[in-house]
Amino acid sequence: MSIFIDDDVLKKLIYEDIHFIDLTTQVLEISDLDGVARVFFRESGVVACSEDAARIYKILGADVRYIVKSGVEAEAGQKILEAFGKASSLHLAWRVAQTLLSYASGVATYTRRMIEKARKVNPRIIIGTTRQPPPGTRIFYLKAVLVGGGVVHRQSLSDTILIFDNHLNFIEKPRVRNAVERALKKSGGRCVGVEVRSLEEAVEAVDSGACYIQFERVSPKDLEKIVREIRKISDKIIVGAGGGITLENIEEYAATGVDMIVTSAPYRAKPIDVTTIIEKV
Amino acid sequence: MSIFIDDDVLKKLIYEDIHFIDLTTQVLEISDLDGVARVFFRESGVVACSEDAARIYKILGADVRYIVKSGVEAEAGQKILEAFGKASSLHLAWRVAQTLLSYASGVATYTRRMIEKARKVNPRIIIGTTRQPPPGTRIFYLKAVLVGGGVVHRQSLSDTILIFDNHLNFIEKPRVRNAVERALKKSGGRCVGVEVRSLEEAVEAVDSGACYIQFERVSPKDLEKIVREIRKISDKIIVGAGGGITLENIEEYAATGVDMIVTSAPYRAKPIDVTTIIEKV
Repeated sequence: MSIFIDDDVLKKLIYEDIHFIDLTTQVLEISDLDGVARVFFRESGVVACSEDAARIYKILGADVRYIVKSGVEAEAGQKILEAFGKASSLHLAWRVAQTLLSYASGVATYTRRMIEKARKVNPRIIIGTTRQPPPGTRIFYLKAVLVGGGVVHRQSLSDTILIFDNHLNFIEKPRVRNAVERALKKSGGRCVGVEVRSLEEAVEAVDSGACYIQFERVSPKDLEKIVREIRKISDKIIVGAGGGITLENIEEYAATGVDMIVTSAPYRAKPIDVTTIIEKV
Repeated sequence: MSIFIDDDVLKKLIYEDIHFIDLTTQVLEISDLDGVARVFFRESGVVACSEDAARIYKILGADVRYIVKSGVEAEAGQKILEAFGKASSLHLAWRVAQTLLSYASGVATYTRRMIEKARKVNPRIIIGTTRQPPPGTRIFYLKAVLVGGGVVHRQSLSDTILIFDNHLNFIEKPRVRNAVERALKKSGGRCVGVEVRSLEEAVEAVDSGACYIQFERVSPKDLEKIVREIRKISDKIIVGAGGGITLENIEEYAATGVDMIVTSAPYRAKPIDVTTIIEKV
């Protein structure tokens, strides 16, 4: 996987949970005792960010001797991580590592389940996630989406051109045509995408040279008709659908024939239930 | 509210969404046009972190002229924020501010709904949240919990002494007594808390001088009996209950007579549906 997660990024998570002293471990005077921490899934799911959880243990001075890699479908009760070290290291790392593993694995699991469901009705469909993970989680949730088999639809404002209504409000009519044509002149070879709400806007976008159109909050029934018409005028255009698509309704949207589902739902997935047992050795 | 959210913390959120250039706004050549961004709740809920969302607009050069404060119960369709400025500023701020407001308001709303439900059966009960918000969100989610009327049970490892089984595994028998007595010697006047699993462990903790006990994953039926017994031996002890408590089952737990519900459920709340409309002025 090509993603850069710096030690500094992991240290920020550690600093969320520690402001100088781990009071409990300190007052119990157990800091220097040798121990082992074992991290288990309490339910089945797709492991994500286990490498990063392991690095948190390492940064805090523990020695990681066992790790189940990101991407593995783990079973309930399966051991994911094992680290040896002083009680001080293990107790500092415990919750930070567990919480990262728990949330990221929830995101990866939800992403993979969406893909599985959608591909039953549309084998070539892609699941792309939005720029709207919870504030502060982005690097980890992007990794989790990739681990789950999804694609990152947009990492940030800086990797794609996607024209929304909030941009079109600054453009003279015909808005979609003028916006796409203007964007293409400066796009530097990039794909120009537009969020559209009707067949008319979609046709205008395709005619003007857009290579991606995205429908927001269009019902599956309407969307199916629109996609059929769009394919008649272009077999190259990439069509996405977004707006409230979850594991519950993804099959209906996938069946419309769109190329990509754009969703934030994996970011709000239930975390995988993870537990850590720390013992003296 | 006494919480310190530095501009640097907000800038980290901005940097999650921008790596140099906002491509779309740039290629459309609308950056220098004057506009207004209006942020609306699409559903009712408790506003949280609107001040911080406003600061994101300000940091990016916009002028915020209207803001609904954190804590207000907003209605569906209500305007929460209004900012004037260049399209470049407004488009940079749009999603970062909206996403923060959306998730934080979801946390605050869920917290307040839990309190409302719990207090119907136990008017003095407190809702305290854990050290397990999603990785990277902590400062915002702690604020959101406070806005919702909850308390932060633990901010980090550094503000409370709470002895878990993972600590007791390093202590000789009788484990609870030895741990509490040892912790009290070094506690510096702090409350010593223990997570316990039975009436026997609870009695041992209270007898040894613990001022807080927390039950994890004990059924409401068993918990009610245990709490009644505990009150007979101490009217000072603070009793908490945690482990899988949500808006769905909180009444049963509140009815057991515990003093505090300890929960991570608000951190996993559905975000409030928020939308932003940006227009030329």
